[in-house]
Amino acid sequence: MAGFDYTKQIERWDIFEVSCPGKTEGNPFTDYAIQGIFKHKNETVKLDGFYDGEGIYKARFMPSFTGEYSFEVSGSFSEKKYTGTFTVEAAGKNNHGPVRVANTYHFAYEDGSPYYPVGTTCYVWELQSEELQKKTLETLKNSPFNKIRFCIFPKHYDYNLKEPRSYPYEGKPMDSSVLTRENFMQYWGAGREAGNDWDFKRFNPEHFRHIEKSIAALRDLGIEADLIVMHPYDRWGFSGMDSECDDLYWNYCIARFAAYRNVWWSLANEYDLMPQKKISDWERYASIICEKDPYNHLRGIHNCRPFYDHSRPWVTHCCIQRQDIYKCAELVAEYRERYKKPVVLDEIAYEGNIQHGWGNISGREMVRRFWEASCRGGYAGHGETFLHPENILWWSHGGELHGESPKRLDFLRRILSETPGLGLAPLQAGWDEIAAAPEGMMGTQGYFLYYYSFMRPSFREFFFDENSEYRVEVIDTWEMIIEDRGCFRGKFRVELPGKEYMAIRIRKTL
Amino acid sequence: MAGFDYTKQIERWDIFEVSCPGKTEGNPFTDYAIQGIFKHKNETVKLDGFYDGEGIYKARFMPSFTGEYSFEVSGSFSEKKYTGTFTVEAAGKNNHGPVRVANTYHFAYEDGSPYYPVGTTCYVWELQSEELQKKTLETLKNSPFNKIRFCIFPKHYDYNLKEPRSYPYEGKPMDSSVLTRENFMQYWGAGREAGNDWDFKRFNPEHFRHIEKSIAALRDLGIEADLIVMHPYDRWGFSGMDSECDDLYWNYCIARFAAYRNVWWSLANEYDLMPQKKISDWERYASIICEKDPYNHLRGIHNCRPFYDHSRPWVTHCCIQRQDIYKCAELVAEYRERYKKPVVLDEIAYEGNIQHGWGNISGREMVRRFWEASCRGGYAGHGETFLHPENILWWSHGGELHGESPKRLDFLRRILSETPGLGLAPLQAGWDEIAAAPEGMMGTQGYFLYYYSFMRPSFREFFFDENSEYRVEVIDTWEMIIEDRGCFRGKFRVELPGKEYMAIRIRKTL
Repeated sequence: MAGFDYTKQIERWDIFEVSCPGKTEGNPFTDYAIQGIFKHKNETVKLDGFYDGEGIYKARFMPSFTGEYSFEVSGSFSEKKYTGTFTVEAAGKNNHGPVRVANTYHFAYEDGSPYYPVGTTCYVWELQSEELQKKTLETLKNSPFNKIRFCIFPKHYDYNLKEPRSYPYEGKPMDSSVLTRENFMQYWGAGREAGNDWDFKRFNPEHFRHIEKSIAALRDLGIEADLIVMHPYDRWGFSGMDSECDDLYWNYCIARFAAYRNVWWSLANEYDLMPQKKISDWERYASIICEKDPYNHLRGIHNCRPFYDHSRPWVTHCCIQRQDIYKCAELVAEYRERYKKPVVLDEIAYEGNIQHGWGNISGREMVRRFWEASCRGGYAGHGETFLHPENILWWSHGGELHGESPKRLDFLRRILSETPGLGLAPLQAGWDEIAAAPEGMMGTQGYFLYYYSFMRPSFREFFFDENSEYRVEVIDTWEMIIEDRGCFRGKFRVELPGKEYMAIRIRKTL
Repeated sequence: MAGFDYTKQIERWDIFEVSCPGKTEGNPFTDYAIQGIFKHKNETVKLDGFYDGEGIYKARFMPSFTGEYSFEVSGSFSEKKYTGTFTVEAAGKNNHGPVRVANTYHFAYEDGSPYYPVGTTCYVWELQSEELQKKTLETLKNSPFNKIRFCIFPKHYDYNLKEPRSYPYEGKPMDSSVLTRENFMQYWGAGREAGNDWDFKRFNPEHFRHIEKSIAALRDLGIEADLIVMHPYDRWGFSGMDSECDDLYWNYCIARFAAYRNVWWSLANEYDLMPQKKISDWERYASIICEKDPYNHLRGIHNCRPFYDHSRPWVTHCCIQRQDIYKCAELVAEYRERYKKPVVLDEIAYEGNIQHGWGNISGREMVRRFWEASCRGGYAGHGETFLHPENILWWSHGGELHGESPKRLDFLRRILSETPGLGLAPLQAGWDEIAAAPEGMMGTQGYFLYYYSFMRPSFREFFFDENSEYRVEVIDTWEMIIEDRGCFRGKFRVELPGKEYMAIRIRKTL
């Protein structure tokens, strides 16, 4: 037995990896199978391993319990079986397990801690230079973001014409020196005819190892990795593989990444911009995930224009790109009603100043959209697209944040973390205020959050009951100030500064 | 013959009034008829006169042509007939005649001059103190507004609890000293039981004479009087009269006001807040206007929630209050398509800071909504509701303007006045810009107006054709600056400051 270390302690929801030498004749990615069985008194998990190159096969496992486990790794990759036992310790302080759907519309870590997603998007941050990746991680560390959307395949698009640090397959890419801002769309979906020469049955393990390193680095920062497995921004033919190669890719991703507790599966970004994939294809990918991911990680699929049918049973939460320039976060309550699942608006336009309308809203508008979504019991997603002398835009490349919204989103995350229960639900109140109460408690907990968006009332009047006492706080969501106004009974009036973006939090005193 | 003066010159579209003594026994408002016939080689107009109190009956006429007219005024009000002739001169410099619908979606004065409505609302400005009315007219004189919406009946509502300067009927009102901000809604729609004692068959001519004086003062400032004839904000019973009294009122208003060229008929404000009136009532009022207004003044009806059916033939233009907090002006193109009539968004929330969500948007948001409406080939309406130590709010009382939007609306009016033709039409362009071209010319005139709303592009690229030359101007709609960027051919790029509320005007050079 070789390549794994029994003595290493692992925590609950960490990775136990069995690494074994195996056959190298033919194509190890397709010609041999490797399976692992991991047993504990509470669970028995069967999973596929994968070929990691250089004669090494691996099987990875994430234990859901503490205590004694045994394992057996075997298959056609080797004449030998690899068996053993290991012990799982309790999770450490910052390890809460995978994120799960909880209370229909919200999320919680598997240990029961609330999880309020405040996500961002850096599509191919991990395929940039080492220096830039380091900077991105440093920025994330000091940011409010606890989820990040990014792609496994490289990206071809405006501001994304350079070569990525590595490619997922053996072979060679088309010559990128021909690309200009004017002609790049001609290469959208290009394949072999453009000079690409890939073997879609031979992965480049180094590319995937690097993605894993990135997932782990995010995990260590407490950030969920919302993996975009497929996307249309392609000049290499990765978006146009046949179903056999697609399925091989999906299986390889699951075998490699599923054991990371912070993984979410985003089947696609803008699935509807990939007409080469039919709904039956997406459903087949979903069935592969459901069959092969033993941990039931969150699954969603992101639209450009029409939503995917988020009522499909395998969809755990709605991943939504806004369909309208003006209204998006304001529709969260309708989406909740329609799908009865968590609503995550992972694209509501980005803070920035580029020429594209999806990438040039103000920080104020970004923060307003987050509050609108949150007070309706949903979640919004951040992104940033400021013109940059070296074309380093957070949205795709990571790097540094330049916008005004992140620190206000941190403030919002604080407000959410002070909510009883797992999240907010929209409350019927006045037509001209957005009101929320803790999910499932509809005011019975004596917690009310009112948001006035771009409206600028100079005062508002309230009445809950004659007898209880309520503490009133006026929140400036932009200036990030919470002002305690003291306690009130019966009918009372709250003076406001007649500014935009104000909120009022009212909590019954004990 | 008495009470009118042949020697007075009148202009085309001015008022020729025949004033005659008549019977006073019984109720002169209901017991006698007075009719006038006015003849010119091009028109013969029959119309009803009215009783103006103190034994005087009047018939009023607005001539549509220059040259010789004859008239005959007669009826049961008098044993005598009053006849004569008069001469109509050409219209003076600032007299363009009544406003008409032109080119399906727009307006023009009867003399063919374009009319781009930039309206405001001061519901009962003319029922305030003389001093305040004077101030309102002074403010209007220095404002961009060329239309104002106001009521004939007084208004009962939040910030509107005082007595008006006069009442439309003989009798006496309920005691208003009982009213408070807390209890006023209890008196909504009150009648006799609350202490009101009116004779709905005896008008107070002085009230109506004062309205006429106000209409004339507006006319002299070049402002259209969008008369709100009925409304629900009532504690006196005026909104709850029976159909006989309603019809008497409508006939009286038409007989008195129709000869003023700047009158528009707004059948109601928030017709749907008057459940006591059925659709058949509104249709009956409309049929009275169509029958009795010889000049075919513009007719509309304003909603609170559901729109009236603006496709009714008598509706000349859509009077629309927004149905959604977030989207209103952005829907103009859909409304144009649906109704094939001019779209006037006469209520899109007011600039201000009161507690009500309809009265506390920023000047920036107000101006943005005007531009959104204008670039889609419609028109928006202004209003202002800032808290005031004496409760003088422009929206209801007039007075002074305090907001930031009016001068920007003046700037927009200038931009509109520089458009070829009568107005703008929405143009299909990028999904992330609002584009307009002159109505009916769809770019063939080489005029394009692009508006970026809250989006903040740092540049945009254009291509119309290889050969023509285009002059490019960058417009800061908030700072009111037009920057000439010179002329371009073929594909060209326009640099922008990455700020909100920018527009680009592109015109083919000759």
